[in-house]
Amino acid sequence: MLVALLTDFGTKDVYVGVMKAVIAGVAPGVPVIDLTHEVEPQAVDEAAFLLAQAVPFLPPGAVVCAVVDPGVGSARRAVVVEVDGRRYVAPDNGLLTPVLFTGAPTRARELTNPAIVDPGRSATFHGRDVFSPAAAFLAGGGAWEDVGPEVDPGTLFELAPNRGRVVHVDRFGNLVTDLPADQLPPDCGLRVGEAEVRRRVRTYADAPVGELVVLEGSSGHLEVSVVQGDAARRLGVARGVEAAPLVAEC
Amino acid sequence: MLVALLTDFGTKDVYVGVMKAVIAGVAPGVPVIDLTHEVEPQAVDEAAFLLAQAVPFLPPGAVVCAVVDPGVGSARRAVVVEVDGRRYVAPDNGLLTPVLFTGAPTRARELTNPAIVDPGRSATFHGRDVFSPAAAFLAGGGAWEDVGPEVDPGTLFELAPNRGRVVHVDRFGNLVTDLPADQLPPDCGLRVGEAEVRRRVRTYADAPVGELVVLEGSSGHLEVSVVQGDAARRLGVARGVEAAPLVAEC
Amino acid sequence: MLVALLTDFGTKDVYVGVMKAVIAGVAPGVPVIDLTHEVEPQAVDEAAFLLAQAVPFLPPGAVVCAVVDPGVGSARRAVVVEVDGRRYVAPDNGLLTPVLFTGAPTRARELTNPAIVDPGRSATFHGRDVFSPAAAFLAGGGAWEDVGPEVDPGTLFELAPNRGRVVHVDRFGNLVTDLPADQLPPDCGLRVGEAEVRRRVRTYADAPVGELVVLEGSSGHLEVSVVQGDAARRLGVARGVEAAPLVAEC
Repeated sequence: MLVALLTDFGTKDVYVGVMKAVIAGVAPGVPVIDLTHEVEPQAVDEAAFLLAQAVPFLPPGAVVCAVVDPGVGSARRAVVVEVDGRRYVAPDNGLLTPVLFTGAPTRARELTNPAIVDPGRSATFHGRDVFSPAAAFLAGGGAWEDVGPEVDPGTLFELAPNRGRVVHVDRFGNLVTDLPADQLPPDCGLRVGEAEVRRRVRTYADAPVGELVVLEGSSGHLEVSVVQGDAARRLGVARGVEAAPLVAEC
Repeated sequence: MLVALLTDFGTKDVYVGVMKAVIAGVAPGVPVIDLTHEVEPQAVDEAAFLLAQAVPFLPPGAVVCAVVDPGVGSARRAVVVEVDGRRYVAPDNGLLTPVLFTGAPTRARELTNPAIVDPGRSATFHGRDVFSPAAAFLAGGGAWEDVGPEVDPGTLFELAPNRGRVVHVDRFGNLVTDLPADQLPPDCGLRVGEAEVRRRVRTYADAPVGELVVLEGSSGHLEVSVVQGDAARRLGVARGVEAAPLVAEC
Repeated sequence: MLVALLTDFGTKDVYVGVMKAVIAGVAPGVPVIDLTHEVEPQAVDEAAFLLAQAVPFLPPGAVVCAVVDPGVGSARRAVVVEVDGRRYVAPDNGLLTPVLFTGAPTRARELTNPAIVDPGRSATFHGRDVFSPAAAFLAGGGAWEDVGPEVDPGTLFELAPNRGRVVHVDRFGNLVTDLPADQLPPDCGLRVGEAEVRRRVRTYADAPVGELVVLEGSSGHLEVSVVQGDAARRLGVARGVEAAPLVAEC
């Protein structure tokens, strides 16, 4: 069964390659796909948002190995959570918030079995020493019960809820907010930072090149975009800036 | 059979990861390779150039899934074209120009079968909803006839022919032109933008470190390079700048 | 058997994708993993350092295809070296220094068999024409003796030994030196360039956010880091800067 990786390790180091080497050693032939490795360093909330975008498209039975882990080496737990037939191997730091607490049956275990994981091998790279071997063990058919003791899912760390921000700037400079489109009027504009963007479209082709627009992105959240341009650069807006529905319209 | 991806989606988002998840769901076990995802956003001509470099090395039967799609959500067609035993799934916007019109037997279909593709799922991400499921369907052994109605290859959109430009700046800062080396004299220099580069070499090792040179790149086109340096930075030249053979020599 | 790639080709071109296409053609079904493609262009020493980090985690029998090759097209040899059951396909330019000369039984061959490699196909892209087909040939079960004539391992090119430098800046801005932690006192600080960093920690969680620290990185070498920050940017230090143990402490 497939392993899907999501980290903030980037690709200029061998960190991700080493994780893949570990997986190939533990579970030869298991396919591995990269969701992304370009999460902003230590940005657990961005990782959680990106994970939520990808999860619905993962095949049933997939094992997600998600490592954005500012607390590596501290006492934070390493866990595996199973929700809806998919398993998530990650630090217990809120990264899994969007897949937890959905009402679906959830069970969890801590990753402690020294026959599988080796948290003492390094104090800084549990992606290599804990998370990838555990993901490979499970994807290769290893038994759920073997990874470590059961954890009450209610004790898992949860991020604070969405609060109206640019949670991600994508490759095109689109400003992706945490505001779900289906909870706002269909013609709703947005304020992001100082800027007000009122033109609401269904698709980029609905406005001329260079126009600032609001649309529902592929994740179901409102985004601010420049048609065939870069909204982040145009507006000087970065991840974390406040975003709010424009009051007059919404 | 292998799927080869070429997009402008970059790798800081989960867009490409989601395409791979979709492919794994439709056609488990089908290998996927990345040609590149760093095409300049919306640069259909650069995508076409890069595609042409890669195609000769793809195994027979490979399915290319190429998505640089400024018209996503508009009326542009989504198509699959078969040339020479390879199949290309792409928007009908000129991206496939270098593989079309080669004289080889060509056939094409529009991607419309709702059992395979779901163009209405989002207005902005047909890489996920149309192109990757269609590529997976075909790579997994799905029938050519099933994807949608036949299209006359003569009606496919074609980019204007090469006209003497830097069509791509590679990772090393080499300025790759659309001028085929075999149609110019073997000692031909180049003008790119304001600069004239006369030193023609066969390989980087033929000139001292730091020297500006013209050589035939691995794609068969003329390139301007700095030996162990960065020609784009040295000359201040970007993609799209004019390039012409130097008249005195050529 | 798996092929692991390490190059300075980046990912904005199709160079790596073409190597994977070649491998898929020669040895269908052989898994390929990327160690990294973001080695600084032509930085053979950085490539050697990164290779050494990854090698211990590669499954036995893996074939490494490592291409950082400023001398491409010159007379430098293309070789395959076998050490400890792993095989390394690379230019003979020092890239393999950390895996050679370890005392383990080593044998080597030059890559010359025209039925396998085609060095004349281009003067600039032996990653495509020499190294990836040779790696695929071996990973697909091709015979060691077939690739070309035997080479005395003692004649392989060797880089000068570590000499106290920042050999790599990782994605997080950590300054990774070539100083092995286990050869220095456990509380040893570092001077990098103009800066002196005395605070030695075991893990990032041992110091407050924003603090400059020295710690043993996952490769076993000393690194200078800013907790949840970017040491390279903070100190204005780049790859190649001198690094030395702080005399008072060490």
